[in-house]
Amino acid sequence: MKFQFAKRMAHLKASDIREILKVTEKPEVISFAGGLPAPELFPVEEIKRVNRIVLEEEGTKALQYTTTEGYNPLREWAANRMNSRLGTNFELDNILLTHGSQQALDLSGKVFLDEGDVVLCESPTYLAAINAFKAYGCNFIEVPTDDDGMIPDELERILESTKRAKIIYVIPEFQNPTGRTWSLERREQLVKAAMRHQVMVIEDNPYGEIRFEGETLPSLKYFDQVGCVLCLGSFSKIFCPGYRIGWVAGDERVIEKYVLVKQGADLQCNTIAQMVIAKYLELYDIDEHITKIREVYRQRRDLAIKTMENEFPEGVTFTKPQGGLFAWVKIPVNISARDVLEKSLEDNVAFVPGGSFFPNGGNENTFRINFSNMPEDRIVKGLQCLADILRKLVKI
Amino acid sequence: MKFQFAKRMAHLKASDIREILKVTEKPEVISFAGGLPAPELFPVEEIKRVNRIVLEEEGTKALQYTTTEGYNPLREWAANRMNSRLGTNFELDNILLTHGSQQALDLSGKVFLDEGDVVLCESPTYLAAINAFKAYGCNFIEVPTDDDGMIPDELERILESTKRAKIIYVIPEFQNPTGRTWSLERREQLVKAAMRHQVMVIEDNPYGEIRFEGETLPSLKYFDQVGCVLCLGSFSKIFCPGYRIGWVAGDERVIEKYVLVKQGADLQCNTIAQMVIAKYLELYDIDEHITKIREVYRQRRDLAIKTMENEFPEGVTFTKPQGGLFAWVKIPVNISARDVLEKSLEDNVAFVPGGSFFPNGGNENTFRINFSNMPEDRIVKGLQCLADILRKLVKI
Repeated sequence: MKFQFAKRMAHLKASDIREILKVTEKPEVISFAGGLPAPELFPVEEIKRVNRIVLEEEGTKALQYTTTEGYNPLREWAANRMNSRLGTNFELDNILLTHGSQQALDLSGKVFLDEGDVVLCESPTYLAAINAFKAYGCNFIEVPTDDDGMIPDELERILESTKRAKIIYVIPEFQNPTGRTWSLERREQLVKAAMRHQVMVIEDNPYGEIRFEGETLPSLKYFDQVGCVLCLGSFSKIFCPGYRIGWVAGDERVIEKYVLVKQGADLQCNTIAQMVIAKYLELYDIDEHITKIREVYRQRRDLAIKTMENEFPEGVTFTKPQGGLFAWVKIPVNISARDVLEKSLEDNVAFVPGGSFFPNGGNENTFRINFSNMPEDRIVKGLQCLADILRKLVKI
Repeated sequence: MKFQFAKRMAHLKASDIREILKVTEKPEVISFAGGLPAPELFPVEEIKRVNRIVLEEEGTKALQYTTTEGYNPLREWAANRMNSRLGTNFELDNILLTHGSQQALDLSGKVFLDEGDVVLCESPTYLAAINAFKAYGCNFIEVPTDDDGMIPDELERILESTKRAKIIYVIPEFQNPTGRTWSLERREQLVKAAMRHQVMVIEDNPYGEIRFEGETLPSLKYFDQVGCVLCLGSFSKIFCPGYRIGWVAGDERVIEKYVLVKQGADLQCNTIAQMVIAKYLELYDIDEHITKIREVYRQRRDLAIKTMENEFPEGVTFTKPQGGLFAWVKIPVNISARDVLEKSLEDNVAFVPGGSFFPNGGNENTFRINFSNMPEDRIVKGLQCLADILRKLVKI
């Protein structure tokens, strides 16, 4: 049998992260690879209790089909949370619950992208967003980006000269993979440009609550006067990723379309997962829980940065993120991070080479370091190991 | 803002079922609409216990990210179950776990369908499959179908004259919406035709375990010598739908592609859901549970059929399914089932008009009756109400 796959399949490749994650399942591996939360912080006991309560109070409802839009108490929570933290003005009907914010990316592609449409993104950008959008046959333009966000003149130039720009995809808070955070000014400039050119903006924000220092900045939605901004959110980093619950928020006329494609994609999110999270939010103080996460990750970031500062050789630079889970490392252009990985895996240390985060390729002299998942002693040991490898390579 | 949706959005419409399901959330409504299992049969106590055990034994693992392919003990169970029941020969690597078998339909579209490709289906067919495939810009050809399945000569004629046939989509066991079951001979004839024409077959089988009488027949896969048959399965009807766990099984070279698109779609299935189901299967006898479901649904089917036989006026015909959740009603061609629904909703009785199950339209004089979800007294009351409406309309 000669399988006749759809044309899109020729452009899709396995996510480096998901492939490397298979290696990192071995307990001896020190992993800076995945965006994995620290499992020791999961509220296991609380979830056990909440599961019991949900099944006792509304067991048959929790195990039955429900509406595509999602469980209303959880939709309301998401709307209120964004409104109080990010200067938005969402209500229940602006929210669709999704299987992680990853699903919201896929649905975005389905709702907006025809073959040949263009997605503008930061350079670099989240690699699984590239794969999600690519399945709809789009092209990518990487907008030149500095530490404050996309550079407005460059964005304007690209929007003016690109006929089929449909989506601008950004992660303004503690970006994946760089850890960068957009300035307030750049946020406003981006939304103004999007409104002017009638392009949709997808603001991905899975890490925003994990801020170690500085003030929370408003969502891009705060500047949106026409309904062009869609906001993605997730429980994966503030609660736990195993439940696969996130959301997309936006203009009701757009969310209706998302509901329609979600029907075809998987009917609805896991009912009991939605109810368990809602009950947890009712019975426990999630802010207290997030404070705990934040404190642990802040210490790990401090330690990771200090270790890199002390150990990495000259010619290697890295970001110092104000929050989130990732730092971004640049090594001399003549060294490939894939070669570094090959060597480091021999010593059981894993990370994700940076090239995959650039939809149009190149930039192989970069890599991403996750600092949230490993305990402190392993962070030091793993980064020292990388430093050793880098020192040898930089010398050559 | 003038939203520029993708072209596919013009062809998608809200599922009649999902819309009617919103009405049926009112407790006073007698619903024959959804394919909802009987909630009083959900093993709530057992699930409560299993949840506790999973969280106690492997809490952090259950709440963390996992591999895209799915939780291995559950993949193994799915392979073994199909092998022992359906004459297949699957192993672990032939299985991808999905968010319900609905997601397997969506992923099938993504893996195989380019715009303009053709999906062959039974006439009528499962309406949410139509929407899932339609999102990929395909066209549908309804293959003339009788009580034994697709008519081989018609199928052959269509395959010969259709250049871009990519997928044949069928539900050979207790079909949705008709309740029909394919004969063994037709199964073999279908697979032979598919192999000859090098077309993929998607065999959807969510109801196969709910057989009230007669022998279980082998899967289409049993006749497949080249890897053209993909089998979908689901825990929604034999366990509970709220968990949204199903699977797709097939040739490893094809499943690899499904894994790739699942990565982009939502990374992975809910981890704790997979582990809870696997633990349930380890600790309890699911066959005992299925026997209970089967017995209750058989009684409900008997009662529904008897009531329709006694009450429905002449000129109205219906199927007598050997299993599953649905019967299919034909009313005189001059009556529209949508008009019947409008009247019956006034009396708080709901069902799904049949027109939506025909991808190319027409056949408005049909509707689907679900008999699994309502207790016996309400089945009788609801069908009597429909009979009253039909009697009046048939007379006119």
